[in-house]
Amino acid sequence: MGAGTEAHFERVAIVGCGLLGASFGQAVRGRGLAGCVVGISRRAETIETALRVGAIDEGSRDVQAVVEADLVVLASPVRTIIEHLGTIGGWLRADAIVTDLGSTKRLIVEAAAKLPYPERFVAGHPMAGSDRSGPEHARADLFEGATWLFTPAAGTDAKALARVEGLVTALGATPLRLDPARHDELVAFSSHLPHALAVSLVNASLPFYDADPPLPRLMAGGYRDTSRIAAADPVMWRDIFTTNAPALREAIAAARRELDTLEGALDDPAKLEEWLARASRARRELNR
Amino acid sequence: MGAGTEAHFERVAIVGCGLLGASFGQAVRGRGLAGCVVGISRRAETIETALRVGAIDEGSRDVQAVVEADLVVLASPVRTIIEHLGTIGGWLRADAIVTDLGSTKRLIVEAAAKLPYPERFVAGHPMAGSDRSGPEHARADLFEGATWLFTPAAGTDAKALARVEGLVTALGATPLRLDPARHDELVAFSSHLPHALAVSLVNASLPFYDADPPLPRLMAGGYRDTSRIAAADPVMWRDIFTTNAPALREAIAAARRELDTLEGALDDPAKLEEWLARASRARRELNR
Repeated sequence: MGAGTEAHFERVAIVGCGLLGASFGQAVRGRGLAGCVVGISRRAETIETALRVGAIDEGSRDVQAVVEADLVVLASPVRTIIEHLGTIGGWLRADAIVTDLGSTKRLIVEAAAKLPYPERFVAGHPMAGSDRSGPEHARADLFEGATWLFTPAAGTDAKALARVEGLVTALGATPLRLDPARHDELVAFSSHLPHALAVSLVNASLPFYDADPPLPRLMAGGYRDTSRIAAADPVMWRDIFTTNAPALREAIAAARRELDTLEGALDDPAKLEEWLARASRARRELNR
Repeated sequence: MGAGTEAHFERVAIVGCGLLGASFGQAVRGRGLAGCVVGISRRAETIETALRVGAIDEGSRDVQAVVEADLVVLASPVRTIIEHLGTIGGWLRADAIVTDLGSTKRLIVEAAAKLPYPERFVAGHPMAGSDRSGPEHARADLFEGATWLFTPAAGTDAKALARVEGLVTALGATPLRLDPARHDELVAFSSHLPHALAVSLVNASLPFYDADPPLPRLMAGGYRDTSRIAAADPVMWRDIFTTNAPALREAIAAARRELDTLEGALDDPAKLEEWLARASRARRELNR
């Protein structure tokens, strides 16, 4: 696609140039979907790296650099996105579309009411990420094949939504709309609970990392796969967990009930096998 | 290596031709480490598949086929290994070495006392596996680079142990000796807890698989990695969990304490970040 099509923007400002923001920049630039991409980060080093990996055309340490952008993409940790929604309003072009890549949506959608034109805020969440962080690990193909969730409000401008959906479709993702509260409830199970369990696994087993023999020598693919995402950025996950605490608590409670079932079945092989088989069947289906 | 070296056996009998047993057969045959490999399974279909994938030279549905083998490898689920240790004694060659691939060791080592020559039983556990099961998924390179745990008893024949260690070294694995009870305590954290959490994740989230939108559309790499091993064979895992219940209970208790910490920190961002950062640092180290 080129200039003039739905998916093309003149000037895209990416606020926050970590793994997600920089991958977005690479993907948009690689497909010629933006005239110019400006990357905004508090840290000079992040901007330098984002420039080096081809994620942005120019960089700024000042959020005022959103001025003149026709698309602003908020790609920081959730609490920082919420902060920016309260501060960027004065610098935005009147016709600018604002979207975000935040992993929780309820509080972000609430905060967007502070924008001068909240109808042109399109709340988004690509189901893509990595256990790595920082622009140095950006991947232009990160969003290919991913579902990209959108949680529009009643007042969201249909044209703004369609343009952002068109853009992410051009990046190889599939847009999917849902309610912000429902979003937060579902990702608590599809994303936040896996993370909570992976971190719990690592922290619970950490005392044995220096045992004799050291636990890492006794690890196979099971431990490595199950714990992989625990390596991800703690600040990003701190914000995700604290902005979705009620839904996360419910997901944890559900996992605790499963551990109850497991413990209760340790003396009941038939019941235990049934518990294991239910998960095995479901997980095999996901591989299809 | 060829005939006459420490690592070579005339006739290897593999009892249980699932993923592990068949991979062992492929690895040994591929390296010319056995004159003949006989595969034993209750199911004719399993034997046929094991023959087809080159895991064995000949097959039998009768455990008496261990007769004449100078190496017997017990590769069934743990409870079946324990059963076989009570029944194969009458058929074994007087000089046969018996080893096993079972994932828990305390009860297996106890059961091996029933063998006519328990000193030539070498309890083993390769730290390798898969979320797939059955001989059709066997891989000749499954053990390459893996640690292969051995839990010899005080009376274990040093020569028998050395020959089995020599064989697994020839397969590309690294032998490591430890006490059976210590083994079971450590693998509860390195292998059984990851499995318990993966299954808990799948079963806890299963009610949302048919939600609108269906949960699988909201999954990224995090859910998939964390849950992958839940697809593994339920019978194998039933036996692992029931033969290591005390150590597994302790590992689950440790994971519950981590979930307690997480829930307590949802209103304390600094504490939450610290909890997440501890795991992130440790998990990144594992990637090095």
